[in-house]
Amino acid sequence: MSNAQRALEHAKTQRSAYMSGFSELLRIPSISTDPNYKAEVARCADWVRDEMRRIGMKNCQTIPTDGHPVVYGEWLEAGADKPTVLIYAHYDVQPVDPLNLWVTPPFEPTERDGKLYARGSEDDKAGVWANLKAIESILAVDGKLPVNVKLFFEGEEESGSPNMHPFVAGNKDLLNADLFVLCDGEFVRDQPSIVYSGRGIVAAEVTLTGPDHDLHSGTYGGTVHNPLHLAGKIIGSFHDDAGRIQIPGYYGAVRDLTAAELANLEQLWARTGVQFKERSGAAHFWGESVASTAVRATALPTLDVNGMWGGYQGPGTKTVLPSKAGFKVTMRLVNDQDPVEIGRMFKDYVMSFATETVSIEVSVPVAGYPFSTQFEGAGVEAVQQALVATVGKRALMERAGGSVPIAGMFQRELGIPMTHLGLGPGDNIHSPNEYIVIEDFYLAIDTAIHVLYNLISFK
Amino acid sequence: MSNAQRALEHAKTQRSAYMSGFSELLRIPSISTDPNYKAEVARCADWVRDEMRRIGMKNCQTIPTDGHPVVYGEWLEAGADKPTVLIYAHYDVQPVDPLNLWVTPPFEPTERDGKLYARGSEDDKAGVWANLKAIESILAVDGKLPVNVKLFFEGEEESGSPNMHPFVAGNKDLLNADLFVLCDGEFVRDQPSIVYSGRGIVAAEVTLTGPDHDLHSGTYGGTVHNPLHLAGKIIGSFHDDAGRIQIPGYYGAVRDLTAAELANLEQLWARTGVQFKERSGAAHFWGESVASTAVRATALPTLDVNGMWGGYQGPGTKTVLPSKAGFKVTMRLVNDQDPVEIGRMFKDYVMSFATETVSIEVSVPVAGYPFSTQFEGAGVEAVQQALVATVGKRALMERAGGSVPIAGMFQRELGIPMTHLGLGPGDNIHSPNEYIVIEDFYLAIDTAIHVLYNLISFK
Repeated sequence: MSNAQRALEHAKTQRSAYMSGFSELLRIPSISTDPNYKAEVARCADWVRDEMRRIGMKNCQTIPTDGHPVVYGEWLEAGADKPTVLIYAHYDVQPVDPLNLWVTPPFEPTERDGKLYARGSEDDKAGVWANLKAIESILAVDGKLPVNVKLFFEGEEESGSPNMHPFVAGNKDLLNADLFVLCDGEFVRDQPSIVYSGRGIVAAEVTLTGPDHDLHSGTYGGTVHNPLHLAGKIIGSFHDDAGRIQIPGYYGAVRDLTAAELANLEQLWARTGVQFKERSGAAHFWGESVASTAVRATALPTLDVNGMWGGYQGPGTKTVLPSKAGFKVTMRLVNDQDPVEIGRMFKDYVMSFATETVSIEVSVPVAGYPFSTQFEGAGVEAVQQALVATVGKRALMERAGGSVPIAGMFQRELGIPMTHLGLGPGDNIHSPNEYIVIEDFYLAIDTAIHVLYNLISFK
Repeated sequence: MSNAQRALEHAKTQRSAYMSGFSELLRIPSISTDPNYKAEVARCADWVRDEMRRIGMKNCQTIPTDGHPVVYGEWLEAGADKPTVLIYAHYDVQPVDPLNLWVTPPFEPTERDGKLYARGSEDDKAGVWANLKAIESILAVDGKLPVNVKLFFEGEEESGSPNMHPFVAGNKDLLNADLFVLCDGEFVRDQPSIVYSGRGIVAAEVTLTGPDHDLHSGTYGGTVHNPLHLAGKIIGSFHDDAGRIQIPGYYGAVRDLTAAELANLEQLWARTGVQFKERSGAAHFWGESVASTAVRATALPTLDVNGMWGGYQGPGTKTVLPSKAGFKVTMRLVNDQDPVEIGRMFKDYVMSFATETVSIEVSVPVAGYPFSTQFEGAGVEAVQQALVATVGKRALMERAGGSVPIAGMFQRELGIPMTHLGLGPGDNIHSPNEYIVIEDFYLAIDTAIHVLYNLISFK
């Protein structure tokens, strides 16, 4: 029996213990976007650090940032001839609204029909946990890892990683490695995929102020500018009816896909497009005259209003002309779109609506660069062979519509090869009733074990 | 000494008795909006009916509706050559929250510094009581009234009069009269006013549904129509940049003010405009190229979004493409604008934005007609001369920006001339520590006495 097989056997005997440890991790509400949860995020970081130590990792620590702490641990005794692998995942989670749509509470992990329901179960505590349990399994049977490993678990991915850039720039030695494995994403047993490209992101928040206090709309309507009206005008102006973004210069740095990329994308879409549409819950797609859905979903930039508010939202009628209105926006960027420049463009555009009757404030707190990882090579192949061993299939090479801001930044700051390994076998990320399929999660852990063995000859 | 003078003298001798009777009325918590007070509203109706009987009115009765009872009484022995005057007031009151801000309990009438504090003391038990005491004073000294009188006291004005339309439509003979006197409003000794016009109102709520559940905007942005974007387009389209409402046909039934009305309005505005602006808290007015602020505030229709919502409203960023968005609207109508027709126009306009990618629902739960009472004529003049006799001043003729839905309904259903007589000399209506100034309330009773004598020659 090979070392890998012994580790896999060990993981099998530990399944129940591994799942109960996972539930402990899922019980910590590490919501990074909400300042009220700051202490819980810190508690989660400490918990993960302690677990790293317990399984035999070295130099385990939480490293403070201006936001939430990074959890770091390493095991570097494989020898200088072995590669060093830097594994990334994030331990923070999305908010839980609307809470009333959760069948069971988001931070009380609950098993139903072979699924474990909890916020963060897929995104991305699965990535944290599968790696920890893979390492634990190997160290338990082997006393050592096949390669040098650095674990880097972020605590503010769901807030757009505002402090990761200075952190990485200031810790290049600590994070130096031969390969960066990005463990954030889905593990799909039937047909896994490797994301080789992700979009950049800019997040912005707009606040409009009309009169200095709420007014009676029967008395002041028509004489005082209602900031909700101007918010509507701005939101309504972002897209034309076809769905094309109207901010001047927005598409300036967008490049067409190469013929090979386009062929790969459309080929992939032929397999996944139906499911994409089913899962969307949309009867009809939108923007089809702009480009094909496969291209719009991954190779074009977007601008979405994620929330808007103002005035009275309760039952019945309230004749109020509110003082304030606001909305939140995220934009997804591709290719050479620079998030700093796009953020400035957005701000200038929105500010151009300000009048003497309604003032506008725009903040652009989050910006992340687009990224592309290896399309082929030994790093990707280590993941591919691991998947062949666990689910019997090679992964498809995919472009992601979403963003991993840290990936683009990593690529720019560290300049090391990257590959992607999704370890979350579930659904409903960022939505109520997030879950993982428990049986498939065991395969994800097995895959993480295989990857470490497969990387022995990477260097 | 004229009959009127003898009645006034009598009222003077009865002041203390009248005030203690008023306190009895104020002790009954006739809160019409709260179902828990249904029995108290009924008890108040019975009490008022008994008081009507006691002072010599005939055919006194409480008439049940699907909501709270109407109190009706009449005295029709003045002769067929005398006019019949239908006097309206309402005996129900507003809720009392926040209770902790009341210095003395809202239903324990308490005198402090010449003021009587109690919920309903101004709005509108003052209207009920001043008329009852005026009639009592006249009947006591004269044995008869100078005109035929019908008293119609409503019990659900503070709940939006949901059952008054069917009641009035079903009792046209009972309520038939030559003049309708609307006794709801302030009695301001220093400068009284007569409200001769109020705007109608239509309230609507719009719900937009895109995908059938919330989606990740990184995955689905640009391919699935975001209902917030369409909500913005609709809200943003309601007004042009000048502030003119863009719904086709919206201004169709709006008439220009007469030269006399306009002159009166601008004259009034010269006195009140500065305070209006100060109270608005707006640095600059809006819509000034459409019409003067005085005209926009009272003589033109409006459309205000009172609330909008959708997606994530908490702190930080959430990359959600929400399933639903919504907003609430109220419109104020003038002249011949029919709220049912405007409601339909609004609905048609908003529904025209619906696409195969976002569905729209529009509900129009509230509609009230605009009204205008007499601007000049014998009815108004009877009130004016009464005020000259009691406070030494003619009233200003005012257009209200707000709405009195029952007044518009009355006008349409009964088709009789109307005038307005405010009998509540106090402040803090709908707020804690509502009160009347006791000395001024005696003047209000005197004014009601004068009005009845002044109307002898109305017919």
